[in-house]
Amino acid sequence: MTDHILIGGGALAREMLEWFAPQLALSGDRFVGYLDDTGEAMAAFGAPLPWLGAIQDHTPDDRPLAMAIADPGARATLGAALTDRGGRFARLLHDRAWISAGARIGEGAVFAPFAYAANASTTGELAQINTFSAVGHDASVGAACCLSSQVDLTGGVKVGDRVFFGSGARVLPGVEIGDDARIGAGSVVVRAVPPRAVMYAQPARRLS
Amino acid sequence: MTDHILIGGGALAREMLEWFAPQLALSGDRFVGYLDDTGEAMAAFGAPLPWLGAIQDHTPDDRPLAMAIADPGARATLGAALTDRGGRFARLLHDRAWISAGARIGEGAVFAPFAYAANASTTGELAQINTFSAVGHDASVGAACCLSSQVDLTGGVKVGDRVFFGSGARVLPGVEIGDDARIGAGSVVVRAVPPRAVMYAQPARRLS
Amino acid sequence: MTDHILIGGGALAREMLEWFAPQLALSGDRFVGYLDDTGEAMAAFGAPLPWLGAIQDHTPDDRPLAMAIADPGARATLGAALTDRGGRFARLLHDRAWISAGARIGEGAVFAPFAYAANASTTGELAQINTFSAVGHDASVGAACCLSSQVDLTGGVKVGDRVFFGSGARVLPGVEIGDDARIGAGSVVVRAVPPRAVMYAQPARRLS
Repeated sequence: MTDHILIGGGALAREMLEWFAPQLALSGDRFVGYLDDTGEAMAAFGAPLPWLGAIQDHTPDDRPLAMAIADPGARATLGAALTDRGGRFARLLHDRAWISAGARIGEGAVFAPFAYAANASTTGELAQINTFSAVGHDASVGAACCLSSQVDLTGGVKVGDRVFFGSGARVLPGVEIGDDARIGAGSVVVRAVPPRAVMYAQPARRLS
Repeated sequence: MTDHILIGGGALAREMLEWFAPQLALSGDRFVGYLDDTGEAMAAFGAPLPWLGAIQDHTPDDRPLAMAIADPGARATLGAALTDRGGRFARLLHDRAWISAGARIGEGAVFAPFAYAANASTTGELAQINTFSAVGHDASVGAACCLSSQVDLTGGVKVGDRVFFGSGARVLPGVEIGDDARIGAGSVVVRAVPPRAVMYAQPARRLS
Repeated sequence: MTDHILIGGGALAREMLEWFAPQLALSGDRFVGYLDDTGEAMAAFGAPLPWLGAIQDHTPDDRPLAMAIADPGARATLGAALTDRGGRFARLLHDRAWISAGARIGEGAVFAPFAYAANASTTGELAQINTFSAVGHDASVGAACCLSSQVDLTGGVKVGDRVFFGSGARVLPGVEIGDDARIGAGSVVVRAVPPRAVMYAQPARRLS
């Protein structure tokens, strides 16, 4: 029986709780609470999970952590802070996701229901792959990236760390995307994207 | 053993029959027939279901109804007419859909295979959510809306009544869409849409 | 116990192997090897499957073949060559796909996990329907077509032979697409496409 702790108490935390609690229960595991600035976020929804305190006050123990904050920068910063203090993050792969046996999945990565990881793909630590999104064959996704829903990273795509993909963004085969880029909803990325670039439209062009 | 009646005999009725008949059968339930102007629509496909007469001639009894017409205006008008005469519509949630326990689903709403309703979302009565489409966390969809396939309503989106979304349309977080709007296939809605507006393209602009 | 042979040893062959090997195993069936110019493609991945020789040297026997090359032209040419020599191709429908009982599926057609075939749809021989892609009601897809991920062919769409659809391409209801056309990723096809046309953008226009 393993107790898991959610990092964050917002909308993604509520989704994570629902996606994974039934599955954890199959092995007697559960979420025991969440860390956030205050306990108000979940209290507003009838407090399905107890508030355990602020993230910065948390002393990690042997209870695995689950990142439940969508923003890649926050994922990376909070993840590093908790890992530095000895915390470790659980890999959470939903049983309605499809994960290749030949895919490498980093610690703390999350695959939502109906997410997909193809053969020889790599998903970095603390990456979040949401519903109907795919990491294609031979593609790699860096640490702390967030793929919103219906994102398609096709074959051989190389994504750096802390990249955000909006709903329905897609990247053509083999294209590389630099660290900290942000790809707008519905964008179709057809050529390399430099670090920190904000891209949008079809074909994707640079907004900033 | 409950007998259900489909409203409409076209393509959506054929899909609904296939999506839900096996699932209804698990509790001994079934579709017993459909209502439409004539019995020709299904007869052309070998009549998988008997024709029970015209919609306007139907006197509702205790048999639940299932709306199988895609157009939001027709859904609303026929739904109201049948409800006014005492009819009630079944909630049909496919067992390959993923529905949050924290989602509110109105009477007569339909979730197709691979449809998704997130935490704290609200889907209005008689709304149709097709394959691979999502109602995001804290989002609300009004009565009689129709989401075609692969539509993504992201977090906190607010959709009025009788809105139609074409294939792959998506709406950015928190954006509001007025009653009776129509959102074209592949459109990316980035700001509020007034009632009755017809929107298309990426980012979506007004066609009429 | 039936032995299947994959045609091609690249990324799609690796995906096909993983998608279908567990399912074939349920009836004691398996993939026994693959045909390709050399045995290097899979060897680079630890050779999950033995190389059986070059495609052009293969003398088909009673072992069913499975096409694992994405390009529609190659699918058609190699498929014809092997069929002419007496080979036959297996229909492979993943158990996480949803296939209408009223859909017609040609020999050698492949439906990936989370693919969808609606009522009264027709999918031609050797067509490939990838993850999250849909063949809509009353739609038809010709021989050797390839739908990448998240493609939506809506109701009544008519697609010729050897058409390629990039990731997330979609086609409006009833639109016809000629033989050998190529539809770019993210394109929204709103009117008829002539044979051999290369289309892209939203709404789709002709590139060549």
